[in-house]
Amino acid sequence: MNITLTKRPLANALAAIGRIIPTRVSEPNLKLVHMYLDTSGEQSRLVLQATNMNIDIEAALEVDVPTDTSLENVALPGHVFADIVQALPGEFVQLEFEDTEVKISSGSYKTSLTRENVDVLPELEFPEDYPGTLPADDFKNLLTHTRYACAAEEYQAIFRGVKLELRDGHSRAVATDGFRLAYYHTELTSGVEGECVVPAKSIDELMRLLGEDDVAFSISNGRLSLATGDHRLNISLMEGTFPDYERIIPNDKVLTLTIDTAELQAILKRVSLMADKSVNNRTDLYLKDGKLNLHSEGAYGKADEVLEVSHEGARSEFAVSYNVKYLLDALQHIDGDARITFSGETSPSLVTDPNKPSCLAMVVPLRVTG
Amino acid sequence: MNITLTKRPLANALAAIGRIIPTRVSEPNLKLVHMYLDTSGEQSRLVLQATNMNIDIEAALEVDVPTDTSLENVALPGHVFADIVQALPGEFVQLEFEDTEVKISSGSYKTSLTRENVDVLPELEFPEDYPGTLPADDFKNLLTHTRYACAAEEYQAIFRGVKLELRDGHSRAVATDGFRLAYYHTELTSGVEGECVVPAKSIDELMRLLGEDDVAFSISNGRLSLATGDHRLNISLMEGTFPDYERIIPNDKVLTLTIDTAELQAILKRVSLMADKSVNNRTDLYLKDGKLNLHSEGAYGKADEVLEVSHEGARSEFAVSYNVKYLLDALQHIDGDARITFSGETSPSLVTDPNKPSCLAMVVPLRVTG
Repeated sequence: MNITLTKRPLANALAAIGRIIPTRVSEPNLKLVHMYLDTSGEQSRLVLQATNMNIDIEAALEVDVPTDTSLENVALPGHVFADIVQALPGEFVQLEFEDTEVKISSGSYKTSLTRENVDVLPELEFPEDYPGTLPADDFKNLLTHTRYACAAEEYQAIFRGVKLELRDGHSRAVATDGFRLAYYHTELTSGVEGECVVPAKSIDELMRLLGEDDVAFSISNGRLSLATGDHRLNISLMEGTFPDYERIIPNDKVLTLTIDTAELQAILKRVSLMADKSVNNRTDLYLKDGKLNLHSEGAYGKADEVLEVSHEGARSEFAVSYNVKYLLDALQHIDGDARITFSGETSPSLVTDPNKPSCLAMVVPLRVTG
Repeated sequence: MNITLTKRPLANALAAIGRIIPTRVSEPNLKLVHMYLDTSGEQSRLVLQATNMNIDIEAALEVDVPTDTSLENVALPGHVFADIVQALPGEFVQLEFEDTEVKISSGSYKTSLTRENVDVLPELEFPEDYPGTLPADDFKNLLTHTRYACAAEEYQAIFRGVKLELRDGHSRAVATDGFRLAYYHTELTSGVEGECVVPAKSIDELMRLLGEDDVAFSISNGRLSLATGDHRLNISLMEGTFPDYERIIPNDKVLTLTIDTAELQAILKRVSLMADKSVNNRTDLYLKDGKLNLHSEGAYGKADEVLEVSHEGARSEFAVSYNVKYLLDALQHIDGDARITFSGETSPSLVTDPNKPSCLAMVVPLRVTG
């Protein structure tokens, strides 16, 4: 059985699949890409599938074959197949499926790739319907503005994911590790109502796969399923109760600073060079007489810098300490001025972009003595 | 004692020193940069020194200080000092040397960096005279065209270095690991006559330090000493007898192929995707009827590609096998056409650039059966 394909879409599909397939794995079957021919529709399709147990991926390419053609249970080593197709010299690829091998030829290049014997294929099921839709940029914004605040440690369970909250009237993402929180809100109605917690690790993999195409999705059976561009994805969701984040976000405002973000970032980076990275990257902020003093100290010595800031609120003198990494993370998506709103010396501070009221970062100050 | 310096040259000097200072090391003293003031000349200089035991480095910056000023035995953590100076906001840096700390200030930023107590400073001695000189590009070419052929394993002793051979009439570099050899020759007379073997690891560090300035050098006391731009370097040389490479380079020519390098590289890369990387990356070349067949096979299957080549010599049919990595390494510096000259099925082949007759790579074919 022969199929001729244009090289580029096949290379793209295999590149996407290659981003999912683990390079080192104890389970060799997870390194495979599976292929079958779907001749059920008007246009026959070559379907490629793979899974790493966290994410299932499927790409389908339209092909011209006689309708009585059948092809199933083909398994090839995913990375090798992807590397070969990527390197092919010609514009087209011919795949010849034989009993024990697949011959791949293009231009003057010919390869025989041995078919893997797989008794049990993973049963990948992709939903037929994807009732929700969001533009690619909005979908990506929801994830990139929040993912950084996820917890990293295994024992932190549900804190290791981003909560997606989809309602009639808004789509929202939230992440927190207990020390800081990130929140992104859009007024977009996606068409799906529900919520789910997506593992941070799967978000990292997903971000490498999202392109410019709208993202259609559904939530069901403990999975977030996506259809975008030429491929479909299933992401296994986290189980557990996400904390009531709205209760944590403070309403009290005792003082709000407005600071040029780039300047603040540069100062925080150089002052915190002296902070003790092995402890908590402590950097102290002290406002007095319209001047913000920033201070760090550690094993190598200490650093100080002062900048003038505009401030408003009941207090005009204020001292607070942060893990500077969390404050820098909170500032990363802000252009122009940033607003830092203090609710108290030990209660959470808010970091916001006046031009993006729907995006919010919260940082809990360090509890320090002296 | 205060010194005011322009930030940029100090940052550059510390960046160069930072490339030498190890980031992780069991000997904490190797993480330090040492400073003293040299007021012996007409223009006083702040001298910065560091060593990683393989390479000593010194940078000297002109400073304006009263001639009776003295400063010695200052030691600061090198990477921290470099990071701070790099991040300073102003155009100038003020260094205030106090008994236990060095205050660094620039613009609105102030740091106190604790001085390290060092009882015994490493005694770094840099020669006063550097009789040899080569233009930076030639010096870099000698090293980059040969370093790749050095052996990697500890037990391979002298094969882990590049031999520099400096004569009246030529400057030459050679490296070999027993499986391939790289040779670069210039007709330049450097002013030094002698030879030495420079460790590959030190060459990697040196390449990060060489800029556009001429390289002045001397060979003495088991060291290659260099002066270039604002800094001076000592590199510890390898001991041992380098093999007689001229005897190894074959004179017999049974067949010479001329091939477009970019095309050959692309074909070798895609054919060798199927080669067995765990063994020897074997790729077979077979010339017949003006066509060069390239073939690899391994655990995943096999690959073949054919290209037409022009050839001259006594033989018109020829079969040979290489570790494809060595062949690709040998081709890396060639633009346009490459020449591959065979001396026999098991004796070394030469890879040359017709436009660079002074540069030569030699690859020993794999001994294969069938």
